[in-house]
Amino acid sequence: MDRFLNPKSIAVIGASADPRKGGYALVSNLKEKIPERLYPVNPGASEICGLPAFKSVDDLPERVDLAVLFIPAAAVPEAMEACGNKGISRIMIQSAGFAETGPQGLALQEACLRVAEKHGMRVWGPNCMGVVNGSTGLVASFMRPDIWRGHLKPGNVSLIVQSGMLSAGFLVQVLKEGFFGLSTACSIGNRCDVNESDLLEYFAEDPQTEVIAMYLESIIDVSRFRNAMSALRKPVVLLKGGTSEEGAQAARSHTGSLAGDGRLTEGFLRQVKIHRATDFLEMVDMARGLSLWQGREGGKRMGIVTFSGASGIVAADHFAALGMTLAPLSPETIRSLKKVFPPWMNPRNPADVWPAIERVGQKAFEVAIKAILADPQVDALYLHLYMDREILARGVGFLESLRGSTKPTAIWLIGDPQCFRTVRDIVEPLGTPVFTELARGARVLAQFMVST
Amino acid sequence: MDRFLNPKSIAVIGASADPRKGGYALVSNLKEKIPERLYPVNPGASEICGLPAFKSVDDLPERVDLAVLFIPAAAVPEAMEACGNKGISRIMIQSAGFAETGPQGLALQEACLRVAEKHGMRVWGPNCMGVVNGSTGLVASFMRPDIWRGHLKPGNVSLIVQSGMLSAGFLVQVLKEGFFGLSTACSIGNRCDVNESDLLEYFAEDPQTEVIAMYLESIIDVSRFRNAMSALRKPVVLLKGGTSEEGAQAARSHTGSLAGDGRLTEGFLRQVKIHRATDFLEMVDMARGLSLWQGREGGKRMGIVTFSGASGIVAADHFAALGMTLAPLSPETIRSLKKVFPPWMNPRNPADVWPAIERVGQKAFEVAIKAILADPQVDALYLHLYMDREILARGVGFLESLRGSTKPTAIWLIGDPQCFRTVRDIVEPLGTPVFTELARGARVLAQFMVST
Repeated sequence: MDRFLNPKSIAVIGASADPRKGGYALVSNLKEKIPERLYPVNPGASEICGLPAFKSVDDLPERVDLAVLFIPAAAVPEAMEACGNKGISRIMIQSAGFAETGPQGLALQEACLRVAEKHGMRVWGPNCMGVVNGSTGLVASFMRPDIWRGHLKPGNVSLIVQSGMLSAGFLVQVLKEGFFGLSTACSIGNRCDVNESDLLEYFAEDPQTEVIAMYLESIIDVSRFRNAMSALRKPVVLLKGGTSEEGAQAARSHTGSLAGDGRLTEGFLRQVKIHRATDFLEMVDMARGLSLWQGREGGKRMGIVTFSGASGIVAADHFAALGMTLAPLSPETIRSLKKVFPPWMNPRNPADVWPAIERVGQKAFEVAIKAILADPQVDALYLHLYMDREILARGVGFLESLRGSTKPTAIWLIGDPQCFRTVRDIVEPLGTPVFTELARGARVLAQFMVST
Repeated sequence: MDRFLNPKSIAVIGASADPRKGGYALVSNLKEKIPERLYPVNPGASEICGLPAFKSVDDLPERVDLAVLFIPAAAVPEAMEACGNKGISRIMIQSAGFAETGPQGLALQEACLRVAEKHGMRVWGPNCMGVVNGSTGLVASFMRPDIWRGHLKPGNVSLIVQSGMLSAGFLVQVLKEGFFGLSTACSIGNRCDVNESDLLEYFAEDPQTEVIAMYLESIIDVSRFRNAMSALRKPVVLLKGGTSEEGAQAARSHTGSLAGDGRLTEGFLRQVKIHRATDFLEMVDMARGLSLWQGREGGKRMGIVTFSGASGIVAADHFAALGMTLAPLSPETIRSLKKVFPPWMNPRNPADVWPAIERVGQKAFEVAIKAILADPQVDALYLHLYMDREILARGVGFLESLRGSTKPTAIWLIGDPQCFRTVRDIVEPLGTPVFTELARGARVLAQFMVST
């Protein structure tokens, strides 16, 4: 896989001199990381993106690590033949028009595989958006350059997805909003050869990757997938497309995936240790939680700290529905809370610190966070915060009480959205993900707590 | 209710000259709307917030429409007695320390009710944050002035909530983000007298209010509530706190609500036409959808337009789980789509317009939106969009195709979050709410479609 993910030399077959075309974007993107051993191939151009262009694969000055193909589907087998003759062994087909279009496209895809077999080549795609590497900055994708430039952020999450959106526009949105940093995003399309198991095996050994998030419409080789998963010592989130009959039908015309045997796949997936997401941002949120809570322990006894009674109640409802319970507070915790609570209020869980804030200010949070995290009857803390500029200006040192917790902690944040990033930048390095909605934080935390 | 919601003269009992106190915020907030007939009462101050202060209720220069009490709970019955003697008939108790604290507080609350009965007064609260009126700008609440100033936005949604957060910090966040405009927000706390049914009856006749959103921990008078709901010709969203045993327990110490008979309440609520939310932002999103889709019809046959195959598939999965189906496209629609789709791609639902965008640009959206909205087999449109500055700069006239639709339409938007507000400002006046997550938009739309 390394020649796919970290190629030192690349040919772009179907490079274009027209900045509106994907074949231009590919060259422009790749040039950032591979300025010298990058070879645009186009029979009608002499220069593309400031690089000399080559009329044909035969003319290439070296046997490149990787050939990226972005030409009409019908022309792909012949181009692959030329690559094979040149000794190129890694082919990434980003063009569409293969198995996802019906029998004719499937035949074309099979023709590609025959060429690959003849020359001993590995094939990535077709019908995909390739690879984005967050740490090296390699963008082997026809995504528009202005979408990603300046927004990649290295990190520990890798993606394996049958979706261009998840390795292009949506991925960049997520990176810009700072939800996590990226190790490698792999858009694998129709998976005629390279599939999710190849990449799971690769990421198992990749020191940059600590969490894996996947969007799949089917699983190509169930027994290999099972083996790869059980050998993997890293948490995995899966969003499965085509869980409904109508979704499965749509999947056939998206990536040619036979997601139709939904019940079998579901049965299999229940036997594998995998976190299931049901939506795209939820997948991202789960990956973030898994990344931040690494090494912390699970359990069912929630501690909730809030400034709003209603929030505590609805949070309790959500955790109950998710199979969690409210921890009964130990006498030590109650003693600590009584020091800041007004006399008329008995400390309990959820701990509503609003009346205490009216007495002692935001320090009430510090007391409550410390007491609840120290309570041996509590397995995890869910903290509901309100933040605005005035509170930020007065200082949020109380958030330091989250530091060093060996229990999972999460924040549900409301208030002035312009202050949210500041709070995240303070608490996420302390291992506390921030969510902007009660239900999301509760679901991600509960998923971790019951499965860890 | 009008003297509670639109008082012309107000006394604030427990007004404070200390800007850090709620008793100062109350006067400061009210002064914006009622600069002249506003009377701070505090035995130790001569001036508060630039207004002359009064030593006692007896000293007030007029029989005010409304007295707002923000003094320690134990002092409330006596202050009410003074109000009664003065002929003041509307009392709003914002102080806490009553039924929510246990038997002693409950006795105090009952003492207040006896005073009210003796003098024929109506009582709002206690343990609440009063009223915020989005159109007049009346803020009868101890919320910090800097939180709301400049951020109220008049509109057609009224709130009835047992939660300070929902009528203060969270409400302002929602208004700032432009999720909807506010008619009136009522924080009703322990509801010792004025309750949700009083307000439902009032809002039934209020021309400003077109949609009602509620957060309740119990229903005080089930048969009156049922009557109020069936007389109401306006949609209602309800977030019910305390649906779990642990949540119900917490509700007792929040607003003294006996939410314990959860099953009875659930059974009753199933007989009433009400939209159920499970979380706070979901409540807001539902209110927004109901507000924008007024007068449009329901149905189960979804049309989905997207630029991403994966999105179409996962959207189909969500709608299937929500009891909706994908509309089969009529021949006319297929003919229209074929004009912009590449020859290898058969138009279907979900309609993935990406390959068409590569051929004809964003105009592909226009063709698809128009065709699907005109299709008699389609009941509603779910549109998945990607937006960034470059696309905005090139023009988004295709969004005009949403204008005049008699079918419900919703957008799930991804891309550059800095462009989201612009899109919302264009499409929400066309009756199309924008959501930033697939699942949320699908759930809100499906709720509307199956219940309308």
